[in-house]
Amino acid sequence: MTKPEELHPDDVQHHLKEVQDLLARQKVVEDLVHRQDMPRHQLVESLVHKQHEAALRAKLESLHPADIAYVLEALPLTERLYAWDLVKAERDGEILLEVSDAVRESLIETMAPAELKAAAESLDADELADLAPDLPPEVIEDVFQSLDSEGREQLRAAMSYPEDSVGALMDFDMVTVREDVTLEVVLRYLRLFDELPDHTDKLFVIDRDDHLKGILSLESLLINDPETLVADVMRKEAVISFTPEDEADDAAQAFERYDLVSAPVIDTEKRLIGRVTVAEVVDYIREESEAEILSHAGLREEEDIFASVWDSVKNRWAWLAINLVTAFVASRVIGLFEDSIERLVALAALMPIVAGIGGNSGNQTVTMIVRAIAMGQVEPSAMTRLLRKELGVALINGLVWGGLLGVLAWWLYGNVELGLVMTGAMTLNLLLAACAGVLVPMVRQRLGADPALGGSVMITALTDSGGFFIFLGLATLILL
Amino acid sequence: MTKPEELHPDDVQHHLKEVQDLLARQKVVEDLVHRQDMPRHQLVESLVHKQHEAALRAKLESLHPADIAYVLEALPLTERLYAWDLVKAERDGEILLEVSDAVRESLIETMAPAELKAAAESLDADELADLAPDLPPEVIEDVFQSLDSEGREQLRAAMSYPEDSVGALMDFDMVTVREDVTLEVVLRYLRLFDELPDHTDKLFVIDRDDHLKGILSLESLLINDPETLVADVMRKEAVISFTPEDEADDAAQAFERYDLVSAPVIDTEKRLIGRVTVAEVVDYIREESEAEILSHAGLREEEDIFASVWDSVKNRWAWLAINLVTAFVASRVIGLFEDSIERLVALAALMPIVAGIGGNSGNQTVTMIVRAIAMGQVEPSAMTRLLRKELGVALINGLVWGGLLGVLAWWLYGNVELGLVMTGAMTLNLLLAACAGVLVPMVRQRLGADPALGGSVMITALTDSGGFFIFLGLATLILL
Repeated sequence: MTKPEELHPDDVQHHLKEVQDLLARQKVVEDLVHRQDMPRHQLVESLVHKQHEAALRAKLESLHPADIAYVLEALPLTERLYAWDLVKAERDGEILLEVSDAVRESLIETMAPAELKAAAESLDADELADLAPDLPPEVIEDVFQSLDSEGREQLRAAMSYPEDSVGALMDFDMVTVREDVTLEVVLRYLRLFDELPDHTDKLFVIDRDDHLKGILSLESLLINDPETLVADVMRKEAVISFTPEDEADDAAQAFERYDLVSAPVIDTEKRLIGRVTVAEVVDYIREESEAEILSHAGLREEEDIFASVWDSVKNRWAWLAINLVTAFVASRVIGLFEDSIERLVALAALMPIVAGIGGNSGNQTVTMIVRAIAMGQVEPSAMTRLLRKELGVALINGLVWGGLLGVLAWWLYGNVELGLVMTGAMTLNLLLAACAGVLVPMVRQRLGADPALGGSVMITALTDSGGFFIFLGLATLILL
Repeated sequence: MTKPEELHPDDVQHHLKEVQDLLARQKVVEDLVHRQDMPRHQLVESLVHKQHEAALRAKLESLHPADIAYVLEALPLTERLYAWDLVKAERDGEILLEVSDAVRESLIETMAPAELKAAAESLDADELADLAPDLPPEVIEDVFQSLDSEGREQLRAAMSYPEDSVGALMDFDMVTVREDVTLEVVLRYLRLFDELPDHTDKLFVIDRDDHLKGILSLESLLINDPETLVADVMRKEAVISFTPEDEADDAAQAFERYDLVSAPVIDTEKRLIGRVTVAEVVDYIREESEAEILSHAGLREEEDIFASVWDSVKNRWAWLAINLVTAFVASRVIGLFEDSIERLVALAALMPIVAGIGGNSGNQTVTMIVRAIAMGQVEPSAMTRLLRKELGVALINGLVWGGLLGVLAWWLYGNVELGLVMTGAMTLNLLLAACAGVLVPMVRQRLGADPALGGSVMITALTDSGGFFIFLGLATLILL
């Protein structure tokens, strides 16, 4: 793997700046010549152009694939495609793996099938499997035909695992040894390699039939006497391993908890089939938390910031549509009380406060409960206890903040009873928010559904409609 | 480091279940004997109790510190403290490092200064620095006195770096070698170790004055001829290193981008002072994304789900208070138009839709812009371009969804003009949301402030008050 040529972490931003400058300079020359509309200057233009192009090409060549990916993501579409054309074809595959989904799509769209095939063929089976969903089927078919039987087997395996499984994180690049040799033999064996697979912190000890017998850490290999047998220093117990069907999230938690660098993946008969490395896990953790943050704001996926207006609309419309429906329902709840509002218009001004604070408070509860459930730290039996606590918090908040707002309403509208209704409605809506915040995710979990999904929308819908209903209902009963 | 005794990643949940069962069985016995109120049964109780206690102690002893931390977090306070008492004192330090802040507080509260001192003394300087903010000052002082001068120096250094700097992630545990020896000498030197520091994937090559000359990866050490000189196979260029003052976030991005396992930390004169490992980086990434998700929901920090009602109220009040103020302002905006609402009460039912959808749409925009800024991929000069795009998206959404709502309003209230006002107000509020979503984070960035902070609250405040003002204002102008 190539490495960037410098020492400092935010140099990638300097690279970006440099590329942008080169692109801008090129554009200035083009604009100038075009504006003057002098055909004989085309020669000059083309010369200057070539010079800048060479500088840009050299710059891109010096960069790590991940840095090129970063630069491409930060460039608007025309500049991005221009720079993409200058990148050496043999690096295309690596770079396509590093860019975000949306940007990858924009790059692949412009590539000919032959280019795509060449890019794909430069990748390992596990990497190819990651890229495959974005490639045209005929390219996949071509690449598949060009593989040897082991490669085909690996690609078929890698593509067969669902996205959130350990199988999807797995690679097939590893060093295996036998248990009946000495460390000296292992050391000599390793010297036959030109390079070791990335993130090799341990060798896998297997028998003739690929059964995992233990692991030999490089540490054990290095600190022990070369005359020792592998069997005597390998770890046989307490080996953390995964099956391809394990959830990626569990594997990520295990890597985090036990500070792993790599771990073997075995099948049901304990045969070694691959490994997971911390690099894949770090990418997975980052992607998962990204996805969670984006979905909180109702974005379907990471958006190419230079995407077309139309792509952005597609990425965002579903969430807006759902919210429109819930807002419309809330609006109809208000519609039920139009008579009351007509008689006491202050209700119209005060009602959004009750609904809004209920939504905020409910979201606090649901966020906390969902996180605890995701960590597996909440048993269904803890529901009563959690409910009692959340109701306690809601009651205190309701009385304190509701009380304050009650006083404000009294002072603004000179109506004690209106103040009391405000306090009562706030408290009741916060209690409703607390119940929903605990019950919605826990019931979803019991039904086997993802406790996180749509929790926030559901809570907000409840506290909006519920808040309007409670406040306007109480007011109608007591005031009118 | 001890390792868990099993093979499967979600076994930690089974451990939790086992501990909970043991605790429950104990409780059943206690309850039974107490309820029957028979003093002569106390002997039986104490016997059974002892038996369960021994089983629990053995169970806890078999677990990895991270797993004990996980179990403690999932237990309600009394059970948690009971289990904590059974944990061997020499493991206290490691476990305190692993638990969440809130749970750590609950454990430290119950420990005597002598226990805390013993726990702290079992840790390395960098670990101690992480724990220090939660320890009473007299304990820190005691521990500090007990260190040797190198330890004191390291602790002082580790504690001096701000939380989000590379210095805070750094440890001092590393293997250094000289460049003028052969690999054979290095191999023999490593055999003198009982163990290598965790995550040793490379050795640091330094001169007599600690200047970093290069790095020798274990890979190079293993694949090259033992007669080779370190100087000939070490990497001198393209070494990614950090200074303690670098931002932790930049380091995390570099680890992710370049798939690092460890990296040297150097001072301004290129002297080696420590290293950062991927384990710390993974923890950092996870904590940062947790903090972001929690702060989106207005939770100040990760909450102990079994915290007292009072602690929860403290964790959540600030966000509710801010939202109360913005909701109150929005309510006063409505107050300005009470006459209009009195004359056309349908306005009261429709206005929350305009405000709500504006908020949703604004949050989509701000989330996307903040993420792009955080990655350093948005130049200030890109503002116009982004603004144009977001306004385009808002215009389409406004006309589509606003148009739909306009038709609904027309149909519900039989008033064409009301429908037109609805469509107009929706479109204008979405345009307002788009402007705010782009400008708020970008202006904050230009002013040197954190672009993410409070963006969502500010946008929602704007689209609420703005939405009410636009809708009611338009209605007053056109309809009344």
